[in-house]
Amino acid sequence: MANPTFTYSLNCPMPELDFDAITLGHGSGGLLTNRLLDSGVFSLFKNEKLQQRHDGVILKPKGPIAFTTDSYVVSPIFFPGGNIGDLAINGTVNDLAMCGAKPRYLSLSFILEEGLPLAEFWEILLTIEHAAKKARIEVVTGDTKVVDRGKGDKIFINTTGIGDVLPQGKINIKRVEVGDAILVSHSIAHHGMAIMLEREGLKFEAPIFSDSRPVHVAVEHLIEQFGKDIKLLRDPTRGGVATVLNEICAQANLGAELHQNALPIDAVVASACEILGIDPLYVANEGVFIAIVKNSIAAEVVSHLAKFPGCERATIIGHMTNEHPKKVLMESGIGGRRVINMLAGEQLPRIC
Amino acid sequence: MANPTFTYSLNCPMPELDFDAITLGHGSGGLLTNRLLDSGVFSLFKNEKLQQRHDGVILKPKGPIAFTTDSYVVSPIFFPGGNIGDLAINGTVNDLAMCGAKPRYLSLSFILEEGLPLAEFWEILLTIEHAAKKARIEVVTGDTKVVDRGKGDKIFINTTGIGDVLPQGKINIKRVEVGDAILVSHSIAHHGMAIMLEREGLKFEAPIFSDSRPVHVAVEHLIEQFGKDIKLLRDPTRGGVATVLNEICAQANLGAELHQNALPIDAVVASACEILGIDPLYVANEGVFIAIVKNSIAAEVVSHLAKFPGCERATIIGHMTNEHPKKVLMESGIGGRRVINMLAGEQLPRIC
Repeated sequence: MANPTFTYSLNCPMPELDFDAITLGHGSGGLLTNRLLDSGVFSLFKNEKLQQRHDGVILKPKGPIAFTTDSYVVSPIFFPGGNIGDLAINGTVNDLAMCGAKPRYLSLSFILEEGLPLAEFWEILLTIEHAAKKARIEVVTGDTKVVDRGKGDKIFINTTGIGDVLPQGKINIKRVEVGDAILVSHSIAHHGMAIMLEREGLKFEAPIFSDSRPVHVAVEHLIEQFGKDIKLLRDPTRGGVATVLNEICAQANLGAELHQNALPIDAVVASACEILGIDPLYVANEGVFIAIVKNSIAAEVVSHLAKFPGCERATIIGHMTNEHPKKVLMESGIGGRRVINMLAGEQLPRIC
Repeated sequence: MANPTFTYSLNCPMPELDFDAITLGHGSGGLLTNRLLDSGVFSLFKNEKLQQRHDGVILKPKGPIAFTTDSYVVSPIFFPGGNIGDLAINGTVNDLAMCGAKPRYLSLSFILEEGLPLAEFWEILLTIEHAAKKARIEVVTGDTKVVDRGKGDKIFINTTGIGDVLPQGKINIKRVEVGDAILVSHSIAHHGMAIMLEREGLKFEAPIFSDSRPVHVAVEHLIEQFGKDIKLLRDPTRGGVATVLNEICAQANLGAELHQNALPIDAVVASACEILGIDPLYVANEGVFIAIVKNSIAAEVVSHLAKFPGCERATIIGHMTNEHPKKVLMESGIGGRRVINMLAGEQLPRIC
């Protein structure tokens, strides 16, 4: 559905099977589960570890690892710029990157609703395979469950990731200090607005695509280049930039001072937000990260970042301060300051 | 309900909150999510790693690790002998054990349906905490999503586990040979029958409880004691003993010869199966494992196993053979032999 990057499915036709939708039997663990796996998952994700078809897999990490989990329940499952499949890969890849780790291994667990068309499942599998390859992460173990019609919503995906911690880095909230610069890696609010417009059937002058993408290559470069001066990394997904900064301030017992004019927002996203009365600071992102870095290297970090696709609009958006601990304040273009609270209710459910 | 072991909730009252059911806002990633986590999860699972509240956690494994994932969608969520919470812990703990690993770390991811009573969520959290403590596995990272009413079914849980591979062991399907003994660790078919009776509201002369329990202590002992002579471990969950043995035979390119009279089945389970016309070989277990061991040590393994709670009825149920590759045959009490196929359709959906 309107994913501009999704053309490879044409080259990889769906296997011919004698069923065209998921049934409860596909979650039985028996013959039908095995046929589903043989036809789809195992033919796409060919690797020695999955081939063993044990309940789990043996891995041999060489040092400290990062470990992160997320369940994806986004609705609709197909949206401009991606689908639940690549979102589930990119989201977990990015969480590993936020730990200062190089993504390595992934578990993949499906909760399918009875009646899910096999064609949709196949398209999701293809994007998963594509996204995993792109992020150089290996799907090494998995699980498939089926729930009866009306007890799920097409497909939920859990991905749990393991990454190798980059030895040059030292990502830790305790290292954040007064004066540190707050960077954002790219223009914000794309993912949430793309989902919202798709869900509500709204059209704007130009389409808005989700920013669902992996950011680990840029992150690895930053850590290799700047080491411990990269102090904290967080991805502003649910709750957006505002919520993540509030969490950082609460945990660091410091304040954040933002400059509204510095926030990178695409014109089409900004006008969609304005028309719908939505503050882009609270809108979910899926390919953007916040970095707290030593102030003296901030400008250099920005110019390094800007070389990576998807980080072209990297910007310093503010600084850490001790003037108003646990509070995020934003200075507007005309000089006023307002408190940016954590997201209170639910702006847009099931964004990821 | 009717879980005979669940009394500790009385000693750990639910936190007082101004909401009594899950709302969409609890999945927002914002203030409500934080309040839910502060009130419940984080007060129960106190450990340094979770306290960091990052997107992931850093772990330092000392050698090879096992990695396994499962999503739990069991219905009903409370059943005689347990609930979805301890099932999600025991299931993943047992999958790690089946890899020959000592369970260490767990990720915990919830998909909650809007409207889930907080009291039920709290009871599930308490059993999770209890089961994790019992299995000495640490919950180190997590995720909470909420879906709108009618788009989920109360609660789904993904647990993904990491364990340290026991160096004395060498669990591998390739090591299974002709003549190896097939052991089952305890009486079978409890979990599936407990769920079925609860779901259908059927009552028998004596209640049937799920066998949901961790088996890793017995497994660790076996591997320490018998090392590489323990060749393969599998837990017969979905699809039961029949399906697991078929998978083993297919992968090992060998056959299995079972003795019907040797199968340990409790009288009440056997009669429930008979009345309902269900073959206990296809019924799911959650606290039983199959071990393929060198025949010469099989009797000794059984006598070791029988000392562990939940393994008292450990038995040799058959042997591996090359006479009928990829086929499981069972000899009946009166001498006949029949083929035991893999589970074909779906006997009982959403068993785990």
